[in-house]
Amino acid sequence: MDDKKLTPLSEIGEFGLIEDLKKEIHLHHKTTIKGIGDDASVIDLGNENVLLLSSDLLAEGVHFDLSYTPLKHLGYKSVVVNVSDIAAMNALPREITVSIAVSSRFTLEAIRELYEGIRLACEYYKLDLVGGDTTSSKSGLIISISITGYAKKNEIVYRSGAKENNLVCVTGNLGAAYMGLQILEREKSVFVSQPGMQPELSGYEYILKRQLKPEARTDMINEFRNLAIIPTSMIDISDGLASEVLHLAKESNTGIDIYEEKLPVDSMTSAVAQELNIPLTTCALNGGEDYELLFTVDLSAFEMLKNHPEISIIGKVNHFSSGNNLHLRSGQVVPLKAQGWKHF
Amino acid sequence: MDDKKLTPLSEIGEFGLIEDLKKEIHLHHKTTIKGIGDDASVIDLGNENVLLLSSDLLAEGVHFDLSYTPLKHLGYKSVVVNVSDIAAMNALPREITVSIAVSSRFTLEAIRELYEGIRLACEYYKLDLVGGDTTSSKSGLIISISITGYAKKNEIVYRSGAKENNLVCVTGNLGAAYMGLQILEREKSVFVSQPGMQPELSGYEYILKRQLKPEARTDMINEFRNLAIIPTSMIDISDGLASEVLHLAKESNTGIDIYEEKLPVDSMTSAVAQELNIPLTTCALNGGEDYELLFTVDLSAFEMLKNHPEISIIGKVNHFSSGNNLHLRSGQVVPLKAQGWKHF
Repeated sequence: MDDKKLTPLSEIGEFGLIEDLKKEIHLHHKTTIKGIGDDASVIDLGNENVLLLSSDLLAEGVHFDLSYTPLKHLGYKSVVVNVSDIAAMNALPREITVSIAVSSRFTLEAIRELYEGIRLACEYYKLDLVGGDTTSSKSGLIISISITGYAKKNEIVYRSGAKENNLVCVTGNLGAAYMGLQILEREKSVFVSQPGMQPELSGYEYILKRQLKPEARTDMINEFRNLAIIPTSMIDISDGLASEVLHLAKESNTGIDIYEEKLPVDSMTSAVAQELNIPLTTCALNGGEDYELLFTVDLSAFEMLKNHPEISIIGKVNHFSSGNNLHLRSGQVVPLKAQGWKHF
Repeated sequence: MDDKKLTPLSEIGEFGLIEDLKKEIHLHHKTTIKGIGDDASVIDLGNENVLLLSSDLLAEGVHFDLSYTPLKHLGYKSVVVNVSDIAAMNALPREITVSIAVSSRFTLEAIRELYEGIRLACEYYKLDLVGGDTTSSKSGLIISISITGYAKKNEIVYRSGAKENNLVCVTGNLGAAYMGLQILEREKSVFVSQPGMQPELSGYEYILKRQLKPEARTDMINEFRNLAIIPTSMIDISDGLASEVLHLAKESNTGIDIYEEKLPVDSMTSAVAQELNIPLTTCALNGGEDYELLFTVDLSAFEMLKNHPEISIIGKVNHFSSGNNLHLRSGQVVPLKAQGWKHF
């Protein structure tokens, strides 16, 4: 009937689909300060405060593998992913709604485990679980969470505010969640080929925790307030450092230079990278799921940040004409590339 | 390993699961005026206004059947379902986030159709689409929408405010969406047995529209304001009138009497009920998906409402000791029972 060419989703990928759908969005309200295009949207509340909104959806077989993910950890992590989006705006979260679709192969006890993890995350991050939906699905488990955050209007930090000569900083360390995933995948494949084997997970606790039960850096938002620092731009590292650096640079219309030797990596991450023969820098740049904060800040903050135990200065913001570059330990400078995650 | 008895979800049902999970919820913030348990949660914004939050999740094969649901209508309806939750609090909606999980059997063009419906609903209800998530799924389509609403604190109407001698009212008419579904199911089963047949849908336009492209009654919220009426309790009719009457009665700690002869039914609904040999009152009481508003209001509003073209007075609030009753045309009085929808 219709001889127009149809486009498989695999052809355009997840980012391509989002870009395509975004084009048709029109806004009706002056209260929407920021719609789609940052870690969270920003809504004017008519006083000095703004409301932030963000939503994430996790699908079984795409975002998590229940063969090695305890449901309690999954519940916890599904909240953390959302909390991290609010933190990335320099704000603190307050309410969440949780919707799940679950197939009848799950038991009540299994869903209670999932909600126990959600509840623990609500305790830790002081969130009120105020609504949601619970329905059946024809297959698998889907978790969709929406979160609110609040801040003063002038505290909000966007992806677009980086300025030339700003410092580029990252919290915590990189690549650990990815390394944890590699260990889980290795033990799963051993188990599939030799079902009697017990998984060898001892000695890997830190990187497994980073993968299975990560934390969002709301502590750093409080630290920024203690230090009286407002970053010029910020984003959370869910898709890997390189990808997020390119986002900040593009949204801020700048170039960014990153220094390989400055990338913070935990000793277990580097030991396991060696054990599994994975290049450590690739892992730190593209690992993903670290839920750390990448931010830029005025050079004047240098003295406060240079010895901060939880913050590493990893680069510098330059004019957009200089592009985005990675300075290798060897002294060589190469263009910074993101190795994306394509789910379709 | 674990010899405790495990409970299949089918044993407790969807309402049972929600009840079970609700028990463990603790709130941390005084700003949460109403958490789980109404059509939307209510959050104090520190001034005269409150924020409302609600989320709904629609799953393919559970909430919709793509064999007869055009994707554009599905997108529209998935927004309407959420808008209706905000209207049911006597408030107007403003922002939505839309998360979808979609399997690779869908094309870009199909997802564009879905979003075109979402966009049309955003135009009609003046909503800003401010965020969401788009990911792949291993099977089927999942649509998860969260919505905000705003109102003055003293305008908010809960399920729990019905008082003895209040009038019980409903907007629009009942059972049409359910009748539309019966026609779609009939034509689908004809098609399955005789694939060459064209579906016979002409003449059924009104009830098909009520099923495939319903509207939320935000117009009635504006009408309440014009009439200077604030209902004492309200709920939207998504699961059928009887079920929602029982919710209002329970939450308000009252009894409610409903009169069969007062139930508003469109002439096409009654003609098709006769054609398909479905008892009309059952259909009006338990049909579901009408997205009309059921509300109670002080007796003093009687003169304003008695001839209102969009509002029917269908019953009266009584002391809880008198229970919930249906007065049949015959004069007989029977206990009002809900025929629920169990998805598991």
